[in-house]
Amino acid sequence: MSSWLGTLFRVATFGESHGRGVGCVVDGCPPRLGLSEADIQPQLDRRRPGQSELATPREEADRVTILTGVENGVTLGTPIAMVVANRDARPGDYAWVARAPRPSHADFTYRAKYGIHASSGGGRSSARETVGRVAAGAVADKWLRERFGVEIVAWVSAVGPVEAPMPDTDRIQRADVDRHPTRCPDPAAAEAMAAAVREVREQRDSLGGVIACVCRGVPPGWGEPVFDKLEAVLARAMLSLPATKGFEIGSGFAGARMRGSDHNDPFVWKDGRLGTATNHSGGVQGGISNGEPILFRVAFKPPATIGRPQTTADYDGEPAILEAGGRHDPCVVPRAVPIVEAMTALVLADAALIQLAREGASPTP
Amino acid sequence: MSSWLGTLFRVATFGESHGRGVGCVVDGCPPRLGLSEADIQPQLDRRRPGQSELATPREEADRVTILTGVENGVTLGTPIAMVVANRDARPGDYAWVARAPRPSHADFTYRAKYGIHASSGGGRSSARETVGRVAAGAVADKWLRERFGVEIVAWVSAVGPVEAPMPDTDRIQRADVDRHPTRCPDPAAAEAMAAAVREVREQRDSLGGVIACVCRGVPPGWGEPVFDKLEAVLARAMLSLPATKGFEIGSGFAGARMRGSDHNDPFVWKDGRLGTATNHSGGVQGGISNGEPILFRVAFKPPATIGRPQTTADYDGEPAILEAGGRHDPCVVPRAVPIVEAMTALVLADAALIQLAREGASPTP
Amino acid sequence: MSSWLGTLFRVATFGESHGRGVGCVVDGCPPRLGLSEADIQPQLDRRRPGQSELATPREEADRVTILTGVENGVTLGTPIAMVVANRDARPGDYAWVARAPRPSHADFTYRAKYGIHASSGGGRSSARETVGRVAAGAVADKWLRERFGVEIVAWVSAVGPVEAPMPDTDRIQRADVDRHPTRCPDPAAAEAMAAAVREVREQRDSLGGVIACVCRGVPPGWGEPVFDKLEAVLARAMLSLPATKGFEIGSGFAGARMRGSDHNDPFVWKDGRLGTATNHSGGVQGGISNGEPILFRVAFKPPATIGRPQTTADYDGEPAILEAGGRHDPCVVPRAVPIVEAMTALVLADAALIQLAREGASPTP
Amino acid sequence: MSSWLGTLFRVATFGESHGRGVGCVVDGCPPRLGLSEADIQPQLDRRRPGQSELATPREEADRVTILTGVENGVTLGTPIAMVVANRDARPGDYAWVARAPRPSHADFTYRAKYGIHASSGGGRSSARETVGRVAAGAVADKWLRERFGVEIVAWVSAVGPVEAPMPDTDRIQRADVDRHPTRCPDPAAAEAMAAAVREVREQRDSLGGVIACVCRGVPPGWGEPVFDKLEAVLARAMLSLPATKGFEIGSGFAGARMRGSDHNDPFVWKDGRLGTATNHSGGVQGGISNGEPILFRVAFKPPATIGRPQTTADYDGEPAILEAGGRHDPCVVPRAVPIVEAMTALVLADAALIQLAREGASPTP
Repeated sequence: MSSWLGTLFRVATFGESHGRGVGCVVDGCPPRLGLSEADIQPQLDRRRPGQSELATPREEADRVTILTGVENGVTLGTPIAMVVANRDARPGDYAWVARAPRPSHADFTYRAKYGIHASSGGGRSSARETVGRVAAGAVADKWLRERFGVEIVAWVSAVGPVEAPMPDTDRIQRADVDRHPTRCPDPAAAEAMAAAVREVREQRDSLGGVIACVCRGVPPGWGEPVFDKLEAVLARAMLSLPATKGFEIGSGFAGARMRGSDHNDPFVWKDGRLGTATNHSGGVQGGISNGEPILFRVAFKPPATIGRPQTTADYDGEPAILEAGGRHDPCVVPRAVPIVEAMTALVLADAALIQLAREGASPTP
Repeated sequence: MSSWLGTLFRVATFGESHGRGVGCVVDGCPPRLGLSEADIQPQLDRRRPGQSELATPREEADRVTILTGVENGVTLGTPIAMVVANRDARPGDYAWVARAPRPSHADFTYRAKYGIHASSGGGRSSARETVGRVAAGAVADKWLRERFGVEIVAWVSAVGPVEAPMPDTDRIQRADVDRHPTRCPDPAAAEAMAAAVREVREQRDSLGGVIACVCRGVPPGWGEPVFDKLEAVLARAMLSLPATKGFEIGSGFAGARMRGSDHNDPFVWKDGRLGTATNHSGGVQGGISNGEPILFRVAFKPPATIGRPQTTADYDGEPAILEAGGRHDPCVVPRAVPIVEAMTALVLADAALIQLAREGASPTP
Repeated sequence: MSSWLGTLFRVATFGESHGRGVGCVVDGCPPRLGLSEADIQPQLDRRRPGQSELATPREEADRVTILTGVENGVTLGTPIAMVVANRDARPGDYAWVARAPRPSHADFTYRAKYGIHASSGGGRSSARETVGRVAAGAVADKWLRERFGVEIVAWVSAVGPVEAPMPDTDRIQRADVDRHPTRCPDPAAAEAMAAAVREVREQRDSLGGVIACVCRGVPPGWGEPVFDKLEAVLARAMLSLPATKGFEIGSGFAGARMRGSDHNDPFVWKDGRLGTATNHSGGVQGGISNGEPILFRVAFKPPATIGRPQTTADYDGEPAILEAGGRHDPCVVPRAVPIVEAMTALVLADAALIQLAREGASPTP
Repeated sequence: MSSWLGTLFRVATFGESHGRGVGCVVDGCPPRLGLSEADIQPQLDRRRPGQSELATPREEADRVTILTGVENGVTLGTPIAMVVANRDARPGDYAWVARAPRPSHADFTYRAKYGIHASSGGGRSSARETVGRVAAGAVADKWLRERFGVEIVAWVSAVGPVEAPMPDTDRIQRADVDRHPTRCPDPAAAEAMAAAVREVREQRDSLGGVIACVCRGVPPGWGEPVFDKLEAVLARAMLSLPATKGFEIGSGFAGARMRGSDHNDPFVWKDGRLGTATNHSGGVQGGISNGEPILFRVAFKPPATIGRPQTTADYDGEPAILEAGGRHDPCVVPRAVPIVEAMTALVLADAALIQLAREGASPTP
């Protein structure tokens, strides 16, 4: 249940990690938006596994097909269904999951909730579910760019203990982020992160990390008080991603240590409009965008699947040793960058449409 | 818009800070729950201003009235409307707000969004809006306790730079939290917090803080993948509170620095069920409760209203100096404790009802 | 439990027939709409009991109070809570309801659903619940009139076997409808209806009837395919009213007997726009308004409460004779006219806002 | 927008008539329900075109594929995506639609709403969209039968002026309905209907009709007051079907002509429970099922596409003559029978789950 998100720009995702495929339905995309698979594939490519290994045989993986809602390269305003086939179905690798739940995976809780769990891989709890989100987000992203000039750029700001300095958030582009396989735009930090990842890979372990994101060009007025404050719907969207443990906007947890006289963002006149001299608010005040860049960070725990043997217990409570076979991603944050961007776009597109309704409702402000 | 929350246990709040009153409608509360104003008033009393000042003349403030949905002390299953009158209407104090937006308040953004803003105080963006949430949350809290034995306890874990050690989350009660006016259960930290608050009050400044919360007794299986994961709806609920800047569950941002081999929570047999030896997950895996205590933290920025003069700009862009009159709360986290508990209860009650539907749908698991 | 309606223009109602009061919360009303109790009271007055009896002592009944969301006579864009106190609380009249369910009332089904039912009157199933709808609808109605020039007029088209001829739906006004207490604009039919009502009153019986409604000035484009087609949301709104048994739009059930060559509405150029020569569609094609008047009809069954003794059975299955005390309305359709108008306005306001979002999304059509 | 339906048992449909395919996503289906394409195909077969013509070459049309949510023949509780490919894509047939809107089709209103319309056929407004509904409904239908023993049977009760007598609604089965191609269970009426259809086909015209439906085995307590009364959500579901013009439950419009003393359904003891002697209520009182059979009727207008030339106007307002090429269905009600059943099942499954939550909420009634 609850595989859908949004009020006017609405998305539902479907698909398990080892079934026929994964995908999404986007309902409420504005009509007459130019759209083809070429608008969606790049973000899926940034998300897919095996990007940074040379000569990977999976080059053609994760090709998206638009089934409905687009004709002659233009959206009709009707539901856009998109599907990506699964190619890596490997039933059998996961037989042991039936006997004992993997630590910090969703095996145990899915079984508690549904009384059943997909027999292979993570099923619906797998990160593969995010394919549908990325496809849907690419549609939202394109509309936001074309209609409002909104730019959404996420990057890796920390991997394990390695933290990168803050980039120039007024200028950073996705191309800057993609320059290094870690998707950290700071070259020195990127190298240190890569080294840290190599180290845990050798040790058959994994590492967490942090993704930061900036949204430029969001006009004042987006976000719906009181329960759909912009930071609230962003937080929900981010914490709905697999492996996330935290969200902060603007000053975040550091802001809790500050005094009001330091934290308050004084208003100033800039660029022909009322803006703020500082941006501890992270672009949102009272749940509504204020025209400054929206800035937030998302914490990802280390992947639960590690190559090292782990002690755990089976469903009967008997102690067991689990050892994962296969190759596993020791750090997911580089691939999660487009996912964070996608969720951001979905949230902003929905907020934008709702505010457009309000603006149309009272034509003379 | 979006003054409502929840799917089956649904709440809508209403009211501005300086209008006739504030309140809520709770739709979907189970029938035949014993309920009266006496079940709700205590949490409102913990929330109301002026608690820690002796001889305050506001003793009778914030009395809740149940208008509908309850008869003979029992819920009917129909909407429960509750109202709390505003007594402190002071139009006039806020005339200057019409000329210049207060830094880090919602004056500017409400005007951008609605083209109008309540002329006094924060209007709908005021923390007074949370009265309705606390009343609704008290209903949810009672049902969760009676039906499942769920216990929700929040406390102040940091005020500005003062951080308290982690209490015994298996045992902490609301009475422990209320022992000190700061609502920090650690006596030494509580004293240091009180000193820090006194200091900023003297300096006509304000301080942020952090609230932590534990939920005990939540059975495995609550929370709806994929967009309504339990941590996602908790994050949304918390970030919908005024002045919040961050949310983390379990290991949170610290988890991003960890390795998988340290972060994974091994399963063990305990108390006649499968549990985990550690709880970095914070009681949730794959968005679903796992039976361990749910643990999360919420960051609050320092209150924007401070007595010190601040530089800012008026709506014409002219520099201005703002100086707030009146008494203001230099640190809101002690009063926010019951608000965090209320939002938690609302989220859990909704998740519980949805899971009850599923359990009833497939009677033989 | 679904005491709410709408996506952007959203309303929740609350209140039982014999509790403290009834009311509603309107969330999503556009800001800066002029609004006061004087805009709402007239429709409540048209709805209240006892209108057509001279010298009734209930003159001041059903006074609405706007609690929130309006300041200085203008909406703030925040939730508008409105309350009407109950004055006629008569606990005790209904003691027998605890023993045996009244035929064709909701006593039995509420008890089956909730395990409890308000001890007096209909509780939440009473027509008194519609007070909140009428208040909310008056807000929607005002906005629709001011923003789009939409006019919504309902009237009584049948009472029992008496059917009135179709009025001039291009011109009929509420004042025309109110000229006769039956709210039938055809004088001869109105008299026949009044006679029929007098007859059943004398016989301590009741009569059903039909209400027709026209909406003029709705621009092409309102209504959301596929599940929120305009006729679908209108049908839901009407069938959510107590005592309704049917809904038809345009040709309705008579259209099922027709041939396509007669039923199709040819397009013609009229008033500088593309319109249709006939209007069997009732102003809606494919679920979307086409610019022609929206025309529909709603069937109301005879009130279940009658003065005559009725055979029935008690909760133990024992045969029983029920005899209702008190005065009862033998025909509700005249009072239901403003209720139908209110539900129509709520549905149209929501559809209008959603379409405004779409129009704003693609500025160059 | 609004291509989704339901609160807990939720369905979204997608697809245009001449794109790649049509389908649906079912979110919230209970886990561990046996399910395969074989459970779904029969209702799709009853819906597909060309059933009653011998030797039709379209035998294998409309094969459904379950993409997700089912493993080893059992539902996982996760979203069930289903797709049916379009085979009859015939772009070019509809070039003239770009110049002039077809009378009583959605060409004009889609263009007014979206500024664009699928270039071929009805696009999203085509009856082909209902393929996704029928597939989703088959899932709901199976669950309702297995969990509660609910039986949903619809049939053709009128075609044009030919009305069939009421069948034995306590016993009628789908097999009885399918005995005649008209899906009218009364042999004599079926023959008269077939003759009427043949006549209009020869005249290149079309005919409307009425479908009736009974739901047996629905326990008391389903349906959510006040806006989601069972009759309200049924009415919405039915009026969301293409070509529908009316809905009535129980006594319907005829009930409006009755007196309360005749219309009221006296309670009696039957089959070990409290039931009603008559069923003018149609199985629903106060919006909640009362345990009696739910009975309703849906009016369908004659199909707008007819072979005869029709006068109309083009988008510039110039008079035009339209003449539809190709073969067209002169009467859709026989094929609409499984669609009505599907929508009914979707509505009931959702109502059932919500009531299951409530029953689980208060374990001791």
